[in-house]
Amino acid sequence: MKADLTTNYVYRFGGGVSDGPKGDKELLGGKGANLAEMASIGLPVPPGFTISTAMCARYYEEGESFPDSVRAEVANGLAHIEAVTGKSFGDGGDPLLVSVRSGARVSMPGMMDTVLNLGLNDQTVAGLAAASGDPRFAWDSYRRFIQMYSDVVLGLDHGAFEEALEIAKEDKGVHLDTDLEAADWQALVARYKELVEEMWERPFPQDVHEQLWGAVGAVFGSWQSERAKVYRRLNAIPHDWGTAVNVQAMVFGNMGDTSATGVAFTRDPATGERAYYGEYLINAQGEDVVAGIRTPQYLTLAARERAGAKAASMEEALPQVYGELARVFDTLENHYRDMQDIEFTVERGKLWMLQTRSGKRTAKAALRIAVEMAREGLITEEEAVLRVDPAALDQLLHPTLDPSAPRNVIARGLPASPGAACGQAVFDADTAERFAGMNEDVILIRTETSPEDIHGMHAAKGILTARGGMTSHAAVVARGMGRPCVSGAGGLSIDSKARMMRVGKQEVREGDLVTIDGTSGEVMLGAVPTVQPELAGDFGTLIAWADKVRRLKVRTNAETPDDCRTAREFGAEGIGLCRTEHMFFDADRITAVRQMILAESETGRRAALAKLLPAQRGDFEEIFRIMAGLPVTIRLLDPPLHEFLPHSEEEFATVAEAADTTVDVLKRRVGELHEFNPMLGHRGCRLGITYPEIYEMQARAIFEAAVAVAKESGAAPIPEVMVPLVATKAELQTIRKLIDATAKAVFEEQGLSVDYLVGTMIELPRAALMAGKIAEEAQFFSFGTNDLTQTTLGVSRDDAGHFLTTYVEKGIFPRDPFVSIDVEGVGELIGIAAERGRATKPGLKLGICGEHGGDPTSIAFCERLGLDYVSASPYRVPIARLAAAQAALRKS
Amino acid sequence: MKADLTTNYVYRFGGGVSDGPKGDKELLGGKGANLAEMASIGLPVPPGFTISTAMCARYYEEGESFPDSVRAEVANGLAHIEAVTGKSFGDGGDPLLVSVRSGARVSMPGMMDTVLNLGLNDQTVAGLAAASGDPRFAWDSYRRFIQMYSDVVLGLDHGAFEEALEIAKEDKGVHLDTDLEAADWQALVARYKELVEEMWERPFPQDVHEQLWGAVGAVFGSWQSERAKVYRRLNAIPHDWGTAVNVQAMVFGNMGDTSATGVAFTRDPATGERAYYGEYLINAQGEDVVAGIRTPQYLTLAARERAGAKAASMEEALPQVYGELARVFDTLENHYRDMQDIEFTVERGKLWMLQTRSGKRTAKAALRIAVEMAREGLITEEEAVLRVDPAALDQLLHPTLDPSAPRNVIARGLPASPGAACGQAVFDADTAERFAGMNEDVILIRTETSPEDIHGMHAAKGILTARGGMTSHAAVVARGMGRPCVSGAGGLSIDSKARMMRVGKQEVREGDLVTIDGTSGEVMLGAVPTVQPELAGDFGTLIAWADKVRRLKVRTNAETPDDCRTAREFGAEGIGLCRTEHMFFDADRITAVRQMILAESETGRRAALAKLLPAQRGDFEEIFRIMAGLPVTIRLLDPPLHEFLPHSEEEFATVAEAADTTVDVLKRRVGELHEFNPMLGHRGCRLGITYPEIYEMQARAIFEAAVAVAKESGAAPIPEVMVPLVATKAELQTIRKLIDATAKAVFEEQGLSVDYLVGTMIELPRAALMAGKIAEEAQFFSFGTNDLTQTTLGVSRDDAGHFLTTYVEKGIFPRDPFVSIDVEGVGELIGIAAERGRATKPGLKLGICGEHGGDPTSIAFCERLGLDYVSASPYRVPIARLAAAQAALRKS
Repeated sequence: MKADLTTNYVYRFGGGVSDGPKGDKELLGGKGANLAEMASIGLPVPPGFTISTAMCARYYEEGESFPDSVRAEVANGLAHIEAVTGKSFGDGGDPLLVSVRSGARVSMPGMMDTVLNLGLNDQTVAGLAAASGDPRFAWDSYRRFIQMYSDVVLGLDHGAFEEALEIAKEDKGVHLDTDLEAADWQALVARYKELVEEMWERPFPQDVHEQLWGAVGAVFGSWQSERAKVYRRLNAIPHDWGTAVNVQAMVFGNMGDTSATGVAFTRDPATGERAYYGEYLINAQGEDVVAGIRTPQYLTLAARERAGAKAASMEEALPQVYGELARVFDTLENHYRDMQDIEFTVERGKLWMLQTRSGKRTAKAALRIAVEMAREGLITEEEAVLRVDPAALDQLLHPTLDPSAPRNVIARGLPASPGAACGQAVFDADTAERFAGMNEDVILIRTETSPEDIHGMHAAKGILTARGGMTSHAAVVARGMGRPCVSGAGGLSIDSKARMMRVGKQEVREGDLVTIDGTSGEVMLGAVPTVQPELAGDFGTLIAWADKVRRLKVRTNAETPDDCRTAREFGAEGIGLCRTEHMFFDADRITAVRQMILAESETGRRAALAKLLPAQRGDFEEIFRIMAGLPVTIRLLDPPLHEFLPHSEEEFATVAEAADTTVDVLKRRVGELHEFNPMLGHRGCRLGITYPEIYEMQARAIFEAAVAVAKESGAAPIPEVMVPLVATKAELQTIRKLIDATAKAVFEEQGLSVDYLVGTMIELPRAALMAGKIAEEAQFFSFGTNDLTQTTLGVSRDDAGHFLTTYVEKGIFPRDPFVSIDVEGVGELIGIAAERGRATKPGLKLGICGEHGGDPTSIAFCERLGLDYVSASPYRVPIARLAAAQAALRKS
Repeated sequence: MKADLTTNYVYRFGGGVSDGPKGDKELLGGKGANLAEMASIGLPVPPGFTISTAMCARYYEEGESFPDSVRAEVANGLAHIEAVTGKSFGDGGDPLLVSVRSGARVSMPGMMDTVLNLGLNDQTVAGLAAASGDPRFAWDSYRRFIQMYSDVVLGLDHGAFEEALEIAKEDKGVHLDTDLEAADWQALVARYKELVEEMWERPFPQDVHEQLWGAVGAVFGSWQSERAKVYRRLNAIPHDWGTAVNVQAMVFGNMGDTSATGVAFTRDPATGERAYYGEYLINAQGEDVVAGIRTPQYLTLAARERAGAKAASMEEALPQVYGELARVFDTLENHYRDMQDIEFTVERGKLWMLQTRSGKRTAKAALRIAVEMAREGLITEEEAVLRVDPAALDQLLHPTLDPSAPRNVIARGLPASPGAACGQAVFDADTAERFAGMNEDVILIRTETSPEDIHGMHAAKGILTARGGMTSHAAVVARGMGRPCVSGAGGLSIDSKARMMRVGKQEVREGDLVTIDGTSGEVMLGAVPTVQPELAGDFGTLIAWADKVRRLKVRTNAETPDDCRTAREFGAEGIGLCRTEHMFFDADRITAVRQMILAESETGRRAALAKLLPAQRGDFEEIFRIMAGLPVTIRLLDPPLHEFLPHSEEEFATVAEAADTTVDVLKRRVGELHEFNPMLGHRGCRLGITYPEIYEMQARAIFEAAVAVAKESGAAPIPEVMVPLVATKAELQTIRKLIDATAKAVFEEQGLSVDYLVGTMIELPRAALMAGKIAEEAQFFSFGTNDLTQTTLGVSRDDAGHFLTTYVEKGIFPRDPFVSIDVEGVGELIGIAAERGRATKPGLKLGICGEHGGDPTSIAFCERLGLDYVSASPYRVPIARLAAAQAALRKS
């Protein structure tokens, strides 16, 4: 193979050298980039070198082999380590030992392989014993190396080695590894080498260079291991990124009482408090801290005292090194301008930094750290805004289970709507409402929910379903209402007639207490105490900073007074989607609604609509009052009529009496209304075209309410009347005429006019394509991305459960397109519509009101397109505000 | 108002003058353009002038009034008529009378208004009496004029005038108008004038110029009449075209026995025979010929003799004028190069041409005329191809009812699939199949059909449904099969359990004879004899000429051997869509299919699939043999699985036994498979992704069949394997791997390889947008315009009946988008997909296989886009061939 002299795959670090491009994680991987960077700012990093991710790609291109050129580069790297440490690789006197670790662009904890103590063989082990003055340490290190190398590089069964160790301990009659002495370890090394020869059919490699290349190949190979592939798929990490390999001089924290090893955070990752936080162990190797065999000790005196622990803190036990470490912490925070997660080792009083990276933290800590760092002047307010993951805020906006309380988990489902709730089990919506009327907390449990369960869902503290995915009716409505929900808990067998469910052998009857955790998907028997969310001061501060840089307005999808109030408290700047159909399900209205639908003539429909008008007007008046001064977008009736149809004989009888007809006639009419694909059926503006009197009543209710509130308050609301499911300009034109005529009539009757807008949903591919023409009749567009996703992809949200999981698992859809906008497909249509709409009408107001309005990735897309607002469910309004601010910052 | 001197609104004709731009129907309207053209080639046209359509637009712009300039132009026009006729408008001596007629760009029969005899008043009537020597004629003309003018221009109730005429006849004791004499007519004129004054509150206008301007205004006004608007909507005529007005000297066919009036065709419009064809009446006005009061006489001696009629033909009665007329016919045919429909009047031995236009004709006549004119050298073969409306061919390709047979029509529905059929009424598919097995003709009658009725539909001679539109399941499948079908016959009340239906008070029981006419939508009791289609020589000739200029290939949508054979006979150049699911409904396969669907594991599915493999292979072998040498596109399983599910207890029991499981388990599984919107559910390639073994079986069946036929015949068929409902490249990639692997395995097993292609349907908006990427994996695209229309418009074809009629009536959709491609919306997506697909892969084969593949308008669209082929149902293949040829000619 011809050496490729122009490409450099190996980057040295440590001992005053730092070859790698600073912070280039793409090339060096996360670990390599950080090691190079620590070295470059003068921190004590054991010398080493990084073989770049580019080599990983080439390794696979060349059929899993190494070009000669890289062999030469690695030799240079080794020479660098030897020069800095003064030790020689494979030297029988004072041998250089190295670690070989993977390092991908992003952390993949536990997914990738590592080999430690590499460079030990039958000769060098003696040198190590002599140089360290500790033969037990030397032989223990050698057996650890053989065990790890056999597992990771040779792929041998690790059980055999563990068994040999157990036998060795039994033979000696001891229980702990620490009770074995140098000779015992030496004997075990001999046994290990026999095991390797038996299983591998070749002796354990004594050539240290062969050891090294084997380990490097194994690390590259681990990128393609099944578990790594699965991890990448689950975390949306591209397969072609590859991993880097870091070869670094070993340092030992287990060389006696002046040696130690530890992990630390520069601030408290749970609370965000500005205090060093960490654990360490004297005379131990890194893996011992995490393995849990010995109890780690606190890093600081304050932490030890607060915990009431006895074992000395590092601040007390190794004060000088601790002081050095504290200075390193400050240096790192100042350098990286973020809270760091650190690994260190002290070898005979000398501090070595092994790793630094941005520390993971809870949502609460993230908020506090971001706000405090900005106040400290370490970062700007804008950077603080970018530091908090909007999705994580969800944790803070809902009640959560008391983490210290015991819980009896009986089933698991999907974490469909966050927050925890506890109450009596009920199995139908009416009972839920009845119990709630008596001030009882209930959990509504259904096989799956339908629009007729809305009143029960609203009455319940939480919702649990046996079927349905993250975007099922139950999940979507629950998120909209801010109710916790666990959906698709497959283990439940629900018998709503018998008012009970079975979970395995457990029976849960109506009235039994159950608890659900919509954040984890757990279902528990009995009451588990919950803690209420605290909208702490940091939250308010950060959101205020976010609002300063945010360009997109944030509205809410809400129709009940409660939801409207919640959304206003969370900072909604108007209503982007007020669905009118939910108002039709109220017990005292549904009969009139049914009468309207089942009427066979306009006269019959008008009679029923006349009954509904006062109620609708009342709904709108209340909403206009709550949203005073803010725009309110009201969508005219949208769903297929048969969603409202009666089911039980009793319901039929009630409607028949109200409509002065017979049950038989009603049933025939119900049959006529049947649809094979209601999503693509007689709904949306098609209802308004075929039955104009329905939209006329709704328009009248809106304008009468607006005039009434204007008269009462002196400040007129600005209703934005939204026409759903438009596919052609002619539809909007027809309905707009009706709306304008109704407005004119109402304003004349009432002697007062208010401003209003008429616009349309863009939720069909044809509407997106025809946006230029439709805009001639529209004063605003609102992208209904739920339906637009359904039609563009040809996927029914309600039915997607049958294959969507498989699709996401197989990577056919990178993410659930109902959660995050399909930017390539649906996104192109939105872009086309925005462009064509604005070409016709430059000031056209553009918003989005699908479920995606609360999804940060989708919000970023809306910002790139320059939409005017997003609209999210009330509990996602703060998330949307932060996400919109981040999107604005990232765009500029 | 300032005169606009630059614009000329008035164009004179006759008397050697012809101002108008030749043949400019846009400006002059159809009638005006033809009059100008006849005048320009020296034919005897009564002199006159045309006020152009541009004036109509301006008339409405100026608030329904006329600019001064046009008044001056009209005065010029009148002067022209006066000069040629030697008469004066309003002259008491020998007055000029004129007709005022509308003339839009296309003929709108009966929709627009006309005023005759204009220029008569109390003075001129005397002059007319003197000049004509016929006072009775003069007063009759005057009363006709008052009656017509009052109706058309003044908008008075015509009933009052008719009543007055009746009273006059009663007073005199006669029954016929012809029994009234000059004095009677004069008295009636007096009464008419009283009536006008009573109703209009002003006297009848005596000023002939006021008469003229009133009439011109009325003609322009008639463009906006309700009936004209409705006609335009129904016939897709733009509202902004406007009408022209033709003012022309009156000529009279009712001035004695040397006067006559008639209508004629230059060839027989029913058969296309090259023979003058027409009717005339001596001493009559034009309206008398059509009014049916007197029986018109034949034009030619031959026609009179053939009919055995006695009244003299024009050839006999007026030989000289007839000779002149015959020369005019020849002149006109040579000039217009088409069969002409003519109106003429003979005034005292002088022939006047009043109208000529291309004559309407039957499909059969259209074919014969086109072919013969090409042979005569009058037109080119290409022009002949353009002369026949492809849609009209449909009439010739199906059996039709004997027009002379009596029929007892009991109901009417939609003409869903052309052709007539007669047979015993049956009310379920199984009975249909059973009766057909006994060689009984049956009509399958269902409330609506579903895929499970396919075998019954196939067994039946015709299909009748009570529900469903032109694109319902019944309609689409019936058209595909070439079975006559009447759908949505709302008057039927079908009770399939009782094996009968009610139509009003009529009961029709199983076995009763019924006849349906899928061309008219009629349902008849009893047997009405049918006549078989004749694919006459002209048909073959024309199609051969069409094929010479056609660029688009024409394939067929077919899956049964019968359909494949029919399509080949009709000239299909391959199969564009072979649906594999229809093969799954066979009685001997459905149990295995159900077993497969209801299996809960891959093993269970594979066991069932193994049973289906030999049957599928057999299907494909037969098709490959029939279509030898032609490409066959096979679509892998597409519909939602639950379409195949068992319904009856018996069916459940059969499947449970076959699958070795219980009915309860099956029923639970059926519940799990339920979908709210199956069209957007678990279907198409989603089945192939989640259950790869299904597609693997189908691929195996295809390749095994191809290899078997290749071995048997020595000529390998080229299967084109088509993957349905693709939305992403990853889907096609995944399934293509499976297909390629299966092909490789089969070819190795069989020791023989055949060529094949793998491609995809483009039937989702996302697929169209992503076509550039999808093309990387596809060897062809086939546009599934049915589903693409459903998703782009968000309209379910099965449910559209609830509103589509209203939409087409209100003009929201110009045409049913399932019949003719929605070019603006769906068409843009097809264009995008074609462009992006070819950008990736320049030679990418592109076709269309939706129902639109047989629609001439849609075929023209495919030609403009440069697709490679269209695929139509077997009986529409000839239509598609002709339409494709026309599209190619019109494009070039």
